[in-house]
Amino acid sequence: MRVTFLGTGAAGGVPLYGCECAACARGRQDPRHVRRPCCALVEHDGARVLLDAGLTDLHERFAPGFLTAIVLTHFHPDHVHGLFHLRWGKADAIPVYGPPDTDGCADLFKHPGMLSFRTARKFEAFELGALRLTPLPLVHSKPTLGYAIEGPAGERFAYLTDTLGLPPRTAGFLRSWGEFEMAIDCSYPPHPAPNNHNDWHAAQRCALEAGARRTWLTHVGHALDDWMIQHAPVVPSHIALAADGIFTDVEPCLR
Amino acid sequence: MRVTFLGTGAAGGVPLYGCECAACARGRQDPRHVRRPCCALVEHDGARVLLDAGLTDLHERFAPGFLTAIVLTHFHPDHVHGLFHLRWGKADAIPVYGPPDTDGCADLFKHPGMLSFRTARKFEAFELGALRLTPLPLVHSKPTLGYAIEGPAGERFAYLTDTLGLPPRTAGFLRSWGEFEMAIDCSYPPHPAPNNHNDWHAAQRCALEAGARRTWLTHVGHALDDWMIQHAPVVPSHIALAADGIFTDVEPCLR
Repeated sequence: MRVTFLGTGAAGGVPLYGCECAACARGRQDPRHVRRPCCALVEHDGARVLLDAGLTDLHERFAPGFLTAIVLTHFHPDHVHGLFHLRWGKADAIPVYGPPDTDGCADLFKHPGMLSFRTARKFEAFELGALRLTPLPLVHSKPTLGYAIEGPAGERFAYLTDTLGLPPRTAGFLRSWGEFEMAIDCSYPPHPAPNNHNDWHAAQRCALEAGARRTWLTHVGHALDDWMIQHAPVVPSHIALAADGIFTDVEPCLR
Repeated sequence: MRVTFLGTGAAGGVPLYGCECAACARGRQDPRHVRRPCCALVEHDGARVLLDAGLTDLHERFAPGFLTAIVLTHFHPDHVHGLFHLRWGKADAIPVYGPPDTDGCADLFKHPGMLSFRTARKFEAFELGALRLTPLPLVHSKPTLGYAIEGPAGERFAYLTDTLGLPPRTAGFLRSWGEFEMAIDCSYPPHPAPNNHNDWHAAQRCALEAGARRTWLTHVGHALDDWMIQHAPVVPSHIALAADGIFTDVEPCLR
């Protein structure tokens, strides 16, 4: 099971418009350090699932029929942006799973076009090809679900953004899930009162509470990148900073 | 006064995702025929006003401080898309004028960031640098205003999208305005019952009712482009089809 991080930025991305911090300056000079809106692709044996849809050029990246489904964590604009263009296409309907949220985003539900919206419900697993997805509640300013994604040979990856901390039932599910990798939002450097998103410390607490073999930090804001440049903090070996375009091949695990 | 058509596409644009009509095929082969979301730039003597904000890469096109203001016709996603990224920037506030619409689009009003929203009201003119803008009511599925834009030497350009026909007071204003050029949406080929947007015939009726010296068709859908390819209709000399990237220099006029 391959997970590719297509976009790893917080809202505003890196470089942030008009910002001259070291991280934003680096992003303008070196495209490897650009962070676009949140989006990841999970591929396994013909199933291709897009997690979140923040990239605005989805219609140019993916030919009709390529995606098995789109699975949304929530309906904030930076996670659904790419749907607005895609919806008017002429192609077979794309199933789009998301949390219960009567508002959605702007007029997506009123004019879904070729998007076929479906409601995911916490702890009610569903299958997309050979992949089994279990929605997990998160803690955010809009109804938000993470997803525990499992392949047939025990490949396990949890996509957990956007959140501040993990609800006890979500952490409990993950602790009894067997070995897995996970991605979680880490938008800020250490902050006395993080809001809506994990800061550096909260993300690491989530990683420990969930017990992931490896935790990828995503939804990264420019201030975190800048802090990493300035402070070069020690990063525990089970923590990795995601970047746009990199992937991880999640190994099967019998446990 | 220079008006540059940055984006001239209807929602969905050209090429439309998954469509294989002649216009969409041409757009995939030749970038001159691509139509991106609605957006135009009016420049006059240091004033730079962006009309609509549908392009998603505004933050990459315009350096901080370049734009005097953004003026919106309405809050449908394909006209405001570019604001979502721009708003989180670190730069001086950008004034954003739009019609009275308590909903706006998604959470733009809740989280305006560096955008300073202001309400434009029909027939209440306002000034941006040397430009005078008069909001004109249009006929659309959301509160929508066109803008009659006038430079100090009588350069006059009316930006009238999205609409189906012109309200009598709007047509009356334009008929007594002196010589001007205008842009209006023409999203469909001839249609028995056009909805929300002008078809080919309605756009030409608007041009005649308003009495424009020259009328640019914009907000063009792939079906209109395809119809133009298939039928090569006779186009009256006062009508011109806009295209992404072209501009018109609006001449001063003493009348």
